[in-house]
Amino acid sequence: MKIAGCIEYDGSRFCGWQIQHGQPTVQAAIESALTDIADHPVRVHCAGRTDTGVHACGQIFHFETDSQRREFNWVMGVNTKLPVGSSLLWTKEVDQNFHARFSAVSRRYRYVLLNRRVRPSYLAKRISWFPRSLDLERMRKAASSLIGTHDFSAFRSSRCRNKVPVKTVTTLDVGQADNWFWFDVEASGFLHHMVRNFVGVLLSIGCGDQDTDWARQVLEQKDRTLAGITAPADGLYFVSASYSEEYPLPAIPPPCRYW
Amino acid sequence: MKIAGCIEYDGSRFCGWQIQHGQPTVQAAIESALTDIADHPVRVHCAGRTDTGVHACGQIFHFETDSQRREFNWVMGVNTKLPVGSSLLWTKEVDQNFHARFSAVSRRYRYVLLNRRVRPSYLAKRISWFPRSLDLERMRKAASSLIGTHDFSAFRSSRCRNKVPVKTVTTLDVGQADNWFWFDVEASGFLHHMVRNFVGVLLSIGCGDQDTDWARQVLEQKDRTLAGITAPADGLYFVSASYSEEYPLPAIPPPCRYW
Repeated sequence: MKIAGCIEYDGSRFCGWQIQHGQPTVQAAIESALTDIADHPVRVHCAGRTDTGVHACGQIFHFETDSQRREFNWVMGVNTKLPVGSSLLWTKEVDQNFHARFSAVSRRYRYVLLNRRVRPSYLAKRISWFPRSLDLERMRKAASSLIGTHDFSAFRSSRCRNKVPVKTVTTLDVGQADNWFWFDVEASGFLHHMVRNFVGVLLSIGCGDQDTDWARQVLEQKDRTLAGITAPADGLYFVSASYSEEYPLPAIPPPCRYW
Repeated sequence: MKIAGCIEYDGSRFCGWQIQHGQPTVQAAIESALTDIADHPVRVHCAGRTDTGVHACGQIFHFETDSQRREFNWVMGVNTKLPVGSSLLWTKEVDQNFHARFSAVSRRYRYVLLNRRVRPSYLAKRISWFPRSLDLERMRKAASSLIGTHDFSAFRSSRCRNKVPVKTVTTLDVGQADNWFWFDVEASGFLHHMVRNFVGVLLSIGCGDQDTDWARQVLEQKDRTLAGITAPADGLYFVSASYSEEYPLPAIPPPCRYW
């Protein structure tokens, strides 16, 4: 039997998704909790592995089990075993062909940023911060040149092992309310640090250090060393993964656009 | 010279506002930072002392100093000295008659709550959580009976030392978006635990354990032991204090209604 689940987590409490010996990771936490409840060793696969400090509102994963449990019991049982800063939102039995990573047709991230001269306090590590004044329209104009199917080599980290640098970005929306900014990105797939590098380029344009056309130039040059800073992980959320209609999964309420 | 300031803090990192020997408190942190920057001992007075775990988006305080500093230097200097989880937003020279506590004509709190079966993760300790289904209209109806000038003895904690239990509540709004609820309360003054006891009573009504008329009955009986639970501190924010026009202070952008 194959079961999909949806997990929410505070990335500041984990050394990323993927299991690393001796480090607290989300994968280790959820596998340990599921192993306890299933009563046999459980291995999970997720829709999009996240780095240290990156949060998730709707990370999708799947696992295989022969144990019969009601949905309520999987969710309540696993949550009693998960460490603070992680919550299992739902589980659902899925078709044997489903794979949280390979069946996903798109993934969505949100980057949330406070734009003021003083650092955040009660949302420290949950949002990012930029002290210089930002112009929404400049960032929106620049963002439009990144939408579409492109070779995003200029926006991948040197550690990226993805074999295909060509991805399709279907959404790159920049929004503002008072001194909050958010960047919504949906794509067929993501390269390592791609969202944080998008944000880094857009911030350089938003504060006036670069022209609005610079995002297009960076994209075309396909050279990471030209793209400038990688925005910090603090403000980045894995929001959701989309699957085709043959794999219907529960919807979760969208997170707030600003925190 | 008298200077007013506005501070934002993560209540989960402090044992409340007021100085307590050997404990991290907001007052101790801000006094220590101001003392460093002013180069002489500084004592502060705030608009509304908060308990352990209670946050602030716009706590107002004042202090006296003979040191000449530009506003930029007070703010940037103090923020380098403040611990993580607290940020000084602005300072402003004020009239000698100003007193952050005694000049305030009203104070405003917001209580933020996530209503779903599973605990919060990345907002743990920043918001409150209620797992049973809540009805907005029932809570709104009940809230309306608490607005006005009343003896709020039924909503004060046994540790409350306030001499006057009669307060004027000008606002008690309950709002909802998806599975977020928020409670906005503005009053001339607050008794100890008054907002958390309001929320406790409204939650009992919202989930159907009590009739909507129960809030009015509790109020009229003036007996704390009848009012039920005190909602946890996690979701409570001191939002702002209002002063008369003779003391103009900088406005800050409002916090999000839901996080």
